[in-house]
Amino acid sequence: MDFNLSDNGQAYLDRVKQFMRDEIFPVEDQVKQEMAALDDPWVELPVIRELKQKAKSQGLWNLFLPDNEHGCGLLNSDYALIAEEMGRSFIAPPIFNCNAPDTGNMEVLLYYGSEAQKQQWLTPLLNGEIRSAFCMTEPDVASSDATNMAATAEVDGDEVVLNGRKWWSTGIGHPDCKVIIFMGLTDPEAHKHQRHSMVVVPRDAPGVTVERMLPVFGSYDEPYGHGVVRFDNVRLPKSAIIKGPGRGFEIAQGRLGPGRVHHCMRAIGAAERTLSLMIDRATSREAFGRPIAKLGGNPDIIANARMSIEQARLLTLKCAWLLDTRGIMGALSEVAMIKAVVPQMLQTIVDNAIQIHGGGGVSDDDFPLTELYAYARVLRLADGPDEVHRATVAKLELKKHSR
Amino acid sequence: MDFNLSDNGQAYLDRVKQFMRDEIFPVEDQVKQEMAALDDPWVELPVIRELKQKAKSQGLWNLFLPDNEHGCGLLNSDYALIAEEMGRSFIAPPIFNCNAPDTGNMEVLLYYGSEAQKQQWLTPLLNGEIRSAFCMTEPDVASSDATNMAATAEVDGDEVVLNGRKWWSTGIGHPDCKVIIFMGLTDPEAHKHQRHSMVVVPRDAPGVTVERMLPVFGSYDEPYGHGVVRFDNVRLPKSAIIKGPGRGFEIAQGRLGPGRVHHCMRAIGAAERTLSLMIDRATSREAFGRPIAKLGGNPDIIANARMSIEQARLLTLKCAWLLDTRGIMGALSEVAMIKAVVPQMLQTIVDNAIQIHGGGGVSDDDFPLTELYAYARVLRLADGPDEVHRATVAKLELKKHSR
Amino acid sequence: MDFNLSDNGQAYLDRVKQFMRDEIFPVEDQVKQEMAALDDPWVELPVIRELKQKAKSQGLWNLFLPDNEHGCGLLNSDYALIAEEMGRSFIAPPIFNCNAPDTGNMEVLLYYGSEAQKQQWLTPLLNGEIRSAFCMTEPDVASSDATNMAATAEVDGDEVVLNGRKWWSTGIGHPDCKVIIFMGLTDPEAHKHQRHSMVVVPRDAPGVTVERMLPVFGSYDEPYGHGVVRFDNVRLPKSAIIKGPGRGFEIAQGRLGPGRVHHCMRAIGAAERTLSLMIDRATSREAFGRPIAKLGGNPDIIANARMSIEQARLLTLKCAWLLDTRGIMGALSEVAMIKAVVPQMLQTIVDNAIQIHGGGGVSDDDFPLTELYAYARVLRLADGPDEVHRATVAKLELKKHSR
Amino acid sequence: MDFNLSDNGQAYLDRVKQFMRDEIFPVEDQVKQEMAALDDPWVELPVIRELKQKAKSQGLWNLFLPDNEHGCGLLNSDYALIAEEMGRSFIAPPIFNCNAPDTGNMEVLLYYGSEAQKQQWLTPLLNGEIRSAFCMTEPDVASSDATNMAATAEVDGDEVVLNGRKWWSTGIGHPDCKVIIFMGLTDPEAHKHQRHSMVVVPRDAPGVTVERMLPVFGSYDEPYGHGVVRFDNVRLPKSAIIKGPGRGFEIAQGRLGPGRVHHCMRAIGAAERTLSLMIDRATSREAFGRPIAKLGGNPDIIANARMSIEQARLLTLKCAWLLDTRGIMGALSEVAMIKAVVPQMLQTIVDNAIQIHGGGGVSDDDFPLTELYAYARVLRLADGPDEVHRATVAKLELKKHSR
Repeated sequence: MDFNLSDNGQAYLDRVKQFMRDEIFPVEDQVKQEMAALDDPWVELPVIRELKQKAKSQGLWNLFLPDNEHGCGLLNSDYALIAEEMGRSFIAPPIFNCNAPDTGNMEVLLYYGSEAQKQQWLTPLLNGEIRSAFCMTEPDVASSDATNMAATAEVDGDEVVLNGRKWWSTGIGHPDCKVIIFMGLTDPEAHKHQRHSMVVVPRDAPGVTVERMLPVFGSYDEPYGHGVVRFDNVRLPKSAIIKGPGRGFEIAQGRLGPGRVHHCMRAIGAAERTLSLMIDRATSREAFGRPIAKLGGNPDIIANARMSIEQARLLTLKCAWLLDTRGIMGALSEVAMIKAVVPQMLQTIVDNAIQIHGGGGVSDDDFPLTELYAYARVLRLADGPDEVHRATVAKLELKKHSR
Repeated sequence: MDFNLSDNGQAYLDRVKQFMRDEIFPVEDQVKQEMAALDDPWVELPVIRELKQKAKSQGLWNLFLPDNEHGCGLLNSDYALIAEEMGRSFIAPPIFNCNAPDTGNMEVLLYYGSEAQKQQWLTPLLNGEIRSAFCMTEPDVASSDATNMAATAEVDGDEVVLNGRKWWSTGIGHPDCKVIIFMGLTDPEAHKHQRHSMVVVPRDAPGVTVERMLPVFGSYDEPYGHGVVRFDNVRLPKSAIIKGPGRGFEIAQGRLGPGRVHHCMRAIGAAERTLSLMIDRATSREAFGRPIAKLGGNPDIIANARMSIEQARLLTLKCAWLLDTRGIMGALSEVAMIKAVVPQMLQTIVDNAIQIHGGGGVSDDDFPLTELYAYARVLRLADGPDEVHRATVAKLELKKHSR
Repeated sequence: MDFNLSDNGQAYLDRVKQFMRDEIFPVEDQVKQEMAALDDPWVELPVIRELKQKAKSQGLWNLFLPDNEHGCGLLNSDYALIAEEMGRSFIAPPIFNCNAPDTGNMEVLLYYGSEAQKQQWLTPLLNGEIRSAFCMTEPDVASSDATNMAATAEVDGDEVVLNGRKWWSTGIGHPDCKVIIFMGLTDPEAHKHQRHSMVVVPRDAPGVTVERMLPVFGSYDEPYGHGVVRFDNVRLPKSAIIKGPGRGFEIAQGRLGPGRVHHCMRAIGAAERTLSLMIDRATSREAFGRPIAKLGGNPDIIANARMSIEQARLLTLKCAWLLDTRGIMGALSEVAMIKAVVPQMLQTIVDNAIQIHGGGGVSDDDFPLTELYAYARVLRLADGPDEVHRATVAKLELKKHSR
Repeated sequence: MDFNLSDNGQAYLDRVKQFMRDEIFPVEDQVKQEMAALDDPWVELPVIRELKQKAKSQGLWNLFLPDNEHGCGLLNSDYALIAEEMGRSFIAPPIFNCNAPDTGNMEVLLYYGSEAQKQQWLTPLLNGEIRSAFCMTEPDVASSDATNMAATAEVDGDEVVLNGRKWWSTGIGHPDCKVIIFMGLTDPEAHKHQRHSMVVVPRDAPGVTVERMLPVFGSYDEPYGHGVVRFDNVRLPKSAIIKGPGRGFEIAQGRLGPGRVHHCMRAIGAAERTLSLMIDRATSREAFGRPIAKLGGNPDIIANARMSIEQARLLTLKCAWLLDTRGIMGALSEVAMIKAVVPQMLQTIVDNAIQIHGGGGVSDDDFPLTELYAYARVLRLADGPDEVHRATVAKLELKKHSR
């Protein structure tokens, strides 16, 4: 048994930590203020663009990709801890070109895209020249049940025609967003998992309209944002379908595992940041003659935070290691478990941190806790609600038992 | 034993319910849209002003005051259920001139104010012509321990001089806010509960500055708002001190009981509204072949919401009844209990409602759940964090036991 | 609104409290020791028999019956608080002839029994001369779903023939147990709620066998006990069927409401006793320089216990008041709610009390906490598991909403 | 990163699994019945003695000891998973000579004992010829605070004299228990952690009396049992003090880490067993037309059990690995964390399993769940209550943060 990273992983982790310490944490406040001062916040700040160049020039770029050609040859279990580190700052992931949904979209294009699709979209994404969005969830149906998906991707001769409404299309608000991966129903008569297709859609294709952007606990998460996107008779050549009609679920599953690990490890980084804020506040203020950290049930809150973070991290690392050693089919339960465990863990810690901060905890301008709360709360729904993942875990458990 | 309202209470409750149904719920969306469309949202909308006049003309006005002269002679236990009704809509309480902190401030002036103070400030407040703010919590100390309060109200000959910074001064942003009740340290050498004074401060007194308004999960709660207020050598005649120097805690305690009941019953109304939203969504969408309401643990969530609301309401009504029949000294534990129980109950139900709404639950524009969450979350800190109230309950329990 | 008992209720409550204080609490240890010293514990101790006579002679007898003829004319909401008082001691309820399942069985015979049944069984039960058992739950099916019930009560000419196995037949071990009320399937073709019959069975009827008594966390609850009872071709005259074939569910529902209130209020009494033990221990021992009561999260535990007891009691009293004023059909949700809320509340408090007692908390000989735990744990299953009651609450909530 | 056992560890794990499957599980019922049939249960059953010989002869013996001389050279992280396997059956640990408190006592003697102590006591313990007890917790003080310990081990010339009362002395009831390790106060003036001594006491030393055995939820855990032991002027040669006066805490700390891992991994084995029972029941019974496993919140219960077991196991393995690679000083927080996390996790799962079993869940004769509950409940207190371990975690967290 060995809980250490590989040497390669450790080296990259050290470098990312140093970059975070030297370059990213110091500009967090500046970024917040500059964003607040903008008339139009749907832009990328120069400070961010510069840091991207810096990270890229240092080779801290596309670390999420396990292959040596496009990435740095990191194992999932190595990159996991690097993703955690990036998760400590909201501004960090895009600086390393490691933010969702671009990471997942790049994986899809890399593993399932045609040469033409790679050339047109993957290359500039890998270079950080453009951004992308992913359109799956729909406003009009309970999307926790993916078979409810009603938007269509119908094949019509040499073309594919898209219709429907999607929402929570993260990244669609970014000025550099040039491409969308869309998932829709192609053949309602096919087997449940062969009905849907994934289609590469240029952001400026006729018929693609962003109806509105969604405010989440008061924030639009500019400049990325979450949009409601309408597809009205969007006509594309059939070659826009990734891997061909009906392969949507197959691709989605392949995209699944590492993406979950990334999400969860970033959330664990956020939890560490939150715990750190909690302790800062709890040790720097006094009430009833003692530091708040020693008052009543507060030591329990701190201990519980530490214990739940440690456990969630180990579960996610084990999941990453299973992906490394057995692939997605050997990690199905773990991939569901981490998604059910980690966001809830983060939400609980943020809630406790708010309470320990007192009034300051609920003020957006004084601490990042309301932002962290919103992040955690959304994560319990994004990519399937907790309930769906627990149901998967239970189903696999019963299946295992029945053998 | 009798869980019915008095006849007078039931009659007013019925009238308030009808007013809510006929006048308030129908304009909620309009108010939201009009507020969103304003360049400067720190104004009172005409639709609100008109409804105020309507409520006033129907005698649905100042119902929170138990006396017959200024209010309607309602018992605390009667008004409680009326406050619950008002709590179902964020826009309702001010329409009935029953919103915090004005209610508490009116009580303070009515029971402890001088004739001059009453004439100058109470009368226009009762008429709804002006609004007020209450300045107690401070940004620089853990205000959960009230003895930490560091702002000063020093007597200097015939004058009193105020210095210090306060925050979470609710209502300070309202264009009609004309008066502040300020609590500060007068005599650091006196007995712990005789050190502080309450002072009536004209909003436009020299030296009173609103540093900034506080955003809470993305909202400023316009047009009321929560401000950070600085008092720099604010000089007032000594007669501005309510009841005289050192009486601050005494007045605060008198203000305490009914205010807690109002807060908690409004929160119970919000919980009922939330449960109603939850069931609407859960019965109108399907996943995995069943309405969401019947899926997995969702019936438990609905049942738990109902059970915790019922229990919290009964506890609050009992508290109100104790205030009616034994006064604050006979209700100390209950007054602490409801403040610890109700906001947490509301937060849990809102969190579950968000989850059941899926993505819609976290979008500010689609459902009022993020707003309800912010309201609940703040309430767990406002007027003392849960922890302080639980500590009071425990202390009283040990004391009871030791007799 | 009035949270006081009626005058009659208060007078009886005062007398029961005094009897508890003067007669029952003082002999608890003696009873425990005498029981432990018996070779055959399936007997009634003389000290218990004497106290029964004393209670009976003072008119503190059959208080659970609301009518004036057999009981004392107490409202459900009055008796509830008396049941709570009795619940403070495990030995108390039978001393007042107010223990389950005899109370429920007496109600069934009183309201639904024939004159002959009343004369033969109700009169001696009311006099405390005999005891009874209730046979409904079955070992071989999930009895949480009552329609699973597989034991049969088949009509054969002028006779009814019983077959099947029942368990958790409480009271069957008592030496005075002379009669059983049995519920079984009569007509599988009838409407779901008209299939079953209740039958009065003499304990010594041929074919009735107690297979074994059930140990619960190490105790058989002697001398009452819980048995596994086999019915092999038990033949009785058809007149043994209460109210006639197919009326079982109708009777069960009539028996339902007050019995739930009794159970729950006794459990609330047990919770008060537990909280009292918790505080005794927490204030009498020190660790790390402070009484345990003030250590870490312990004040929260004490406060939470007080808050949950108060809320559960009010809910149960409201339920009792609804039964008094609107009958069972006006209290369906409340009757389900209290059964879901109260036992879980008791279990939590007992668990916390065990923790605060340290090693002593898990020793049967040192504190009654393991016994209280077993009582609470069983109560979460007896008369339907929590889950079933929550499901009922949810169902009623959805129904209310759909109107 | 590597979550696999070492080759040596895997080989032993496989052999232990096979032994469990072939030899131990098949005789569990027989052991239960034979124990129940005994007049005097304070004996070791022949079937157990035979299995011990079998395990010993196969080299599945003293696996807990990491050294190659007395044990099998297993790492803590290897043995952990073997301990989990043993934890699946209550009868298993002693069969492999791997049960508490003998394991801890053997470690103390091996690492800190004199040659004479080793020869006299360690050798027969390693051979399984005798058993031992550990006397630390005291009935008269809150032993969660170890400095409360009041029993004395006073040096008097060449002798040491023991006085005081201990309880929860596990193993003292076993017929083969021949030796006690006693911890007592030697020098009240010394530094807090140099006041106490550990003393090796022959079970039959004059002055050693077992006052009574402690029943835990109805069971004495025969033939081991937990005793209240009185030491009245027990005089021993000074050489009976392990490592010399005042070294008690030092030794206790050395004994600490691996013991905690063993305890926790056995508890994880018990949790797996419980989950397996839960699923068996949930899949084999139906209610409301579906298997219980699919009803309402039950899939969540199953998923939560799986998720909490996985996380707790990983935390414990990480702790074991830290002990292997950095020693106790590198694992202080983890050693506290696992003790706070694992027993609570087990208790929750057992509680849920009871609920899913319905009435059967609370009957000692039908399922082992009440026994598992008692085991879990005791474990939350044994070796320090949860609260103490959480306090340690919080303290270390604050310390880490202040650096």
